[in-house]
Amino acid sequence: MKAEIITIGDELLIGQVIDTNSAWMAAQLNAIGVDVKQITSIADARLQILHALSEAGNRARIVLISGGLGPTRDDITKQTLCEYFDTNLIVDESALADITAFFARRGISMTELNRKQSEMPAVCTSIPNPAGTARGMWFEKDNTIFISMPGVPFEMKTIMTDYVLPALKKRFPNTAVVHRTILTTGLGESFLAARIEAWENSLPGYIKLAYLPQPGIVRLRLTARGCHEDKLQKEIDTLIEKLYGLIPELIFGEGTETLEGVIGKLLLSKKQTMATAESCTGGSIAQKITSVSGSSAYYKGSVVAYSNEIKQQVLNVDHESLAQNGAVSREVVEQMAQGACRVLNTNWAISVSGIAGPDGGTEEKPVGTVWIGVAGPDGVTSQKFLFGDNRERNNIRATIAALNMLRSKILQSM
Amino acid sequence: MKAEIITIGDELLIGQVIDTNSAWMAAQLNAIGVDVKQITSIADARLQILHALSEAGNRARIVLISGGLGPTRDDITKQTLCEYFDTNLIVDESALADITAFFARRGISMTELNRKQSEMPAVCTSIPNPAGTARGMWFEKDNTIFISMPGVPFEMKTIMTDYVLPALKKRFPNTAVVHRTILTTGLGESFLAARIEAWENSLPGYIKLAYLPQPGIVRLRLTARGCHEDKLQKEIDTLIEKLYGLIPELIFGEGTETLEGVIGKLLLSKKQTMATAESCTGGSIAQKITSVSGSSAYYKGSVVAYSNEIKQQVLNVDHESLAQNGAVSREVVEQMAQGACRVLNTNWAISVSGIAGPDGGTEEKPVGTVWIGVAGPDGVTSQKFLFGDNRERNNIRATIAALNMLRSKILQSM
Repeated sequence: MKAEIITIGDELLIGQVIDTNSAWMAAQLNAIGVDVKQITSIADARLQILHALSEAGNRARIVLISGGLGPTRDDITKQTLCEYFDTNLIVDESALADITAFFARRGISMTELNRKQSEMPAVCTSIPNPAGTARGMWFEKDNTIFISMPGVPFEMKTIMTDYVLPALKKRFPNTAVVHRTILTTGLGESFLAARIEAWENSLPGYIKLAYLPQPGIVRLRLTARGCHEDKLQKEIDTLIEKLYGLIPELIFGEGTETLEGVIGKLLLSKKQTMATAESCTGGSIAQKITSVSGSSAYYKGSVVAYSNEIKQQVLNVDHESLAQNGAVSREVVEQMAQGACRVLNTNWAISVSGIAGPDGGTEEKPVGTVWIGVAGPDGVTSQKFLFGDNRERNNIRATIAALNMLRSKILQSM
Repeated sequence: MKAEIITIGDELLIGQVIDTNSAWMAAQLNAIGVDVKQITSIADARLQILHALSEAGNRARIVLISGGLGPTRDDITKQTLCEYFDTNLIVDESALADITAFFARRGISMTELNRKQSEMPAVCTSIPNPAGTARGMWFEKDNTIFISMPGVPFEMKTIMTDYVLPALKKRFPNTAVVHRTILTTGLGESFLAARIEAWENSLPGYIKLAYLPQPGIVRLRLTARGCHEDKLQKEIDTLIEKLYGLIPELIFGEGTETLEGVIGKLLLSKKQTMATAESCTGGSIAQKITSVSGSSAYYKGSVVAYSNEIKQQVLNVDHESLAQNGAVSREVVEQMAQGACRVLNTNWAISVSGIAGPDGGTEEKPVGTVWIGVAGPDGVTSQKFLFGDNRERNNIRATIAALNMLRSKILQSM
């Protein structure tokens, strides 16, 4: 099954916005056995939209379109779709009800521009958008399906997940595609590849392995394609079992799991609590943990101690340790973790202190030096890491390393 | 002057890699007055490459191509370019010398695959690549320029900056393009559009306005095109001055500025400090502020008080206020801000307490209810917001609203 993606928006063509929608949509289509053959980005311009629709329609069976559905006049996708499908706009009562409710929930009154968003092309099936006011549209023409969605990533993803992907799967039930994604942390892509090389070489031709690296994490995705889903599933399961045997300490979860989610489940099952004490990560760890709905059951809070003063006054790190060893040291990070446990009255605490960069590095402690501590029922431990010279990536990598250290310690204590 | 961009690579079409090259190239072209009309991403597949070259060549005067120039066999761009330009590969002695030196510098020996990278299409001008082993190629055919570059972002950027952009500027010295982007917060896209409608209608045809919304922020970008850069710049400046007069309270910066960066500059200029006390935002505000390099000069830290216990013990929120009004209330959020100022010993503090969702809402305080407080030299104030029902977006919107509230208060105190 061939698909193409068209993303529409002037901002893409002047380089103001990076098109992240296409990669996400491509990955989702891929996962249901649909091959994306081309991604085309064009401006909010009538002729170009018409041309791109016609070209993509000639080559593909499915065309996903994102962008150009906002209420303002620079967004012309909806009118242009009407022209392409030779139809006109009519008020969609159900869309109007949704939009009215959307604004009522927020306690603000609708403008005429918002009301106009309830007008939909007469020949399309309109797709509800629980995340915004611009609905999706499903058209069919000459055996090709065209689906238009808003360009706001969150709205597009909601419409894809809730409606488009299930509908496409139902429509094209034939190819069996089975995925399983294993999440690893603690080893870079090339070292991980070397470690599982023999296993990778043993994969049959119809099972593909993809390395999907992101800072601090490498996802390993196995994809099997064939006719018999059950058989493929069994083969994948056997292969993954072998993989668990090869790199048990590197795997922290599967699929859409996250380190913070895994930690949450472990703590809930043990009825334990945790806190954080962050310096260089500046709230990143707290943010990850609180991104899990229900985290208030085990997470009490964080002290983001960006100054030594706070490390001493709130976390009770002693003045001498700071003076003798500096804030980025084993002594300080261990006292921070213990202080967080005590002050926030929890079973566990993670602490981080490091030099995120770009400034503040020394010969002895270069930019990227990070100490991470974990305090728990069996005492406190700490470890030193040396990341790179990019502030943002250092924070992400320190956050992941800290979460993973806590995960390991909780598991060891069970 | 019209241009198109073609990015080549299987990894783009399965969503494994986000195409960041296109946005960068588009921004660079735009800055020298070249309009990108289309961006096309295709697989490492001969027929698709030939088709894309031909289509883009018919429409544009300049075609930039990135990707598919690696030494491995899946990269077929160079051979396919030979086919398209009806030419053959010959060893480029200067390329061979560069590659030999490249490997000598790294103390590793060259393989036959690396040596083959010195073969270039006979009809092209080969472009040195100081950052890697795959050279760029400059072709001309039927009045269109085709420039092929490696897909590794760092190598592509080096070739563009060192060679391609200067060469294009020299070739096409005429058009002038002037941009200016205004950053606003506090009003949604459609309401903002209604408020500045008359101003928008007054824009001449050669000055375009684009609305670029992201959660909590709407960027307004004006683009002027013509022959005389100075004149365009003056016109844009006059228009922007009028816009400042229309929505002074909504504008917080321009271009690549951020709320957290603007706050940082204000505090540095006043030699003042700040802290945060976060509940539902769970560290997001701390993270934003500490993402600014040098923030340790004015930011002391945060208490992420995810439990009432911490609100009481660390921030000294009184038990009765919590019991009578609940954690999401004016009283509690104001005490949190004052507590953060006191405990962290700062001039300013922001506090946030709300119901991020998806659970925890009540009829009186539905999901999305957020109280934000700001304590400063002149006392404490607070405001209630009602956002939506998505946890992640609520946190982003609360974070932006809180930062903007602090920014306004600091400005008022000056």
